[in-house]
Amino acid sequence: MYIRFMHDGQEKQGFLTQGIIRILDGDMLQGGKISNETLDFDEVSLLAPCCPSKVVCIGLNYKDHAKEMNMDMPKEPLLFMKPSTSVIGDKNPIVAPPQSQHLEYEAELAIVISQPAKNISVEDAENYIFGYSCANDFTARDLQLADKQWTRGKSFDTFCPVGPGIVNTLKCEDAVIELAVNGEVRQRSNLNQLIFNVHEIVSYVSSQMTLLPGDIILTGTPHGVGPVEPGDVMAVSIDGIGTLTNQLTAS
Amino acid sequence: MYIRFMHDGQEKQGFLTQGIIRILDGDMLQGGKISNETLDFDEVSLLAPCCPSKVVCIGLNYKDHAKEMNMDMPKEPLLFMKPSTSVIGDKNPIVAPPQSQHLEYEAELAIVISQPAKNISVEDAENYIFGYSCANDFTARDLQLADKQWTRGKSFDTFCPVGPGIVNTLKCEDAVIELAVNGEVRQRSNLNQLIFNVHEIVSYVSSQMTLLPGDIILTGTPHGVGPVEPGDVMAVSIDGIGTLTNQLTAS
Repeated sequence: MYIRFMHDGQEKQGFLTQGIIRILDGDMLQGGKISNETLDFDEVSLLAPCCPSKVVCIGLNYKDHAKEMNMDMPKEPLLFMKPSTSVIGDKNPIVAPPQSQHLEYEAELAIVISQPAKNISVEDAENYIFGYSCANDFTARDLQLADKQWTRGKSFDTFCPVGPGIVNTLKCEDAVIELAVNGEVRQRSNLNQLIFNVHEIVSYVSSQMTLLPGDIILTGTPHGVGPVEPGDVMAVSIDGIGTLTNQLTAS
Repeated sequence: MYIRFMHDGQEKQGFLTQGIIRILDGDMLQGGKISNETLDFDEVSLLAPCCPSKVVCIGLNYKDHAKEMNMDMPKEPLLFMKPSTSVIGDKNPIVAPPQSQHLEYEAELAIVISQPAKNISVEDAENYIFGYSCANDFTARDLQLADKQWTRGKSFDTFCPVGPGIVNTLKCEDAVIELAVNGEVRQRSNLNQLIFNVHEIVSYVSSQMTLLPGDIILTGTPHGVGPVEPGDVMAVSIDGIGTLTNQLTAS
């Protein structure tokens, strides 16, 4: 798993395997190679695994969620965005803004883009995906619904946890996605429930706007979203990636 | 007026006055000084005057437009975003995407942020504004209305012309804003019609998300929006700034 982290006051990148970090000799998105220099995982603090210029998000995209809500399957993905300033890494706190009285988690699979992508076909999309991570599309539900436009409710600083790292490959045809609050499972589905699969999503978004290296696409959340309070700890887990953990703190 | 431009294949910054460019010896947002090295304006091609990490936009924000539409004055600004990949400069073509059959111009005042801004008061907002420019919040109206979320209709590459440059000060209490299509005026209002003024806008947006140096806020469009076709030339003029001209071309 590729990670970004702070060590000795410096931002570094590495490849994590079995608790050992091998430092990269360059940027993961620019062919940085895995060196023989190692660090223990418990010596570092994680950052978000990449620095996106934009985070594009997909609305309703799980078959089981659509059925549960009695909603028609969407014909095209619905797009919205979160700003890069909302992105944080594993174990970083989500800060509750004073404006909202109703905050909710949304577990999501994140796609990380490897190279500039414009008008890419579904067949070619795999060549533009660097890898996958866990994400939490954290949302001030009251502000989202009040504004109709979803931007404000989803754009506060810290509202886009991504991590812990990036895996290059993922068995999307069978991978459980789960979110637990304080250890209790609240969302549980499988990536095989995605209405638009990862290749269709990359192709579609790239037909609307140019994606840049490190850009992130959040692929929608399964059923089971709900409120959290300051102090609650959210853990997003996806088979084959790992677990992204963030605690909500009061502002 | 501060400008960014290409010259001899290099990206440069300068200060334009009376047709003469004085080259900056650093970045305009980092205190770059005006040198004695000069260029003729007709030797260069303009770029967007800054490179925003995000473009935050305000919905309905002109008193005359709200009255014309019989709409209540909004209590708070409505926010949405355009991606940085949509930003282009003066004279660059806007490219019509094949997905849309209904494209519209929206003349707007752009605010350019000078330094990181979070939870800034209205009184302090002036210290976080680097300057002002003209913008066109170009929109695929059919896709905007079909999606309900405005992201897709407003996010295509080239859909955010900004320029021609940035002025540090602006007489917002009396400045005509105007948009002409092929020389015929279609939008005409005054910045004194803004429901939320520039200081209130910077304060409000900074309470929702951290603004970074070079970030752009588009402040809403006055009445008179309407459709354009490939070949049409749009010119956004604001007293004290200048004119931003972009032609719509077929994809």
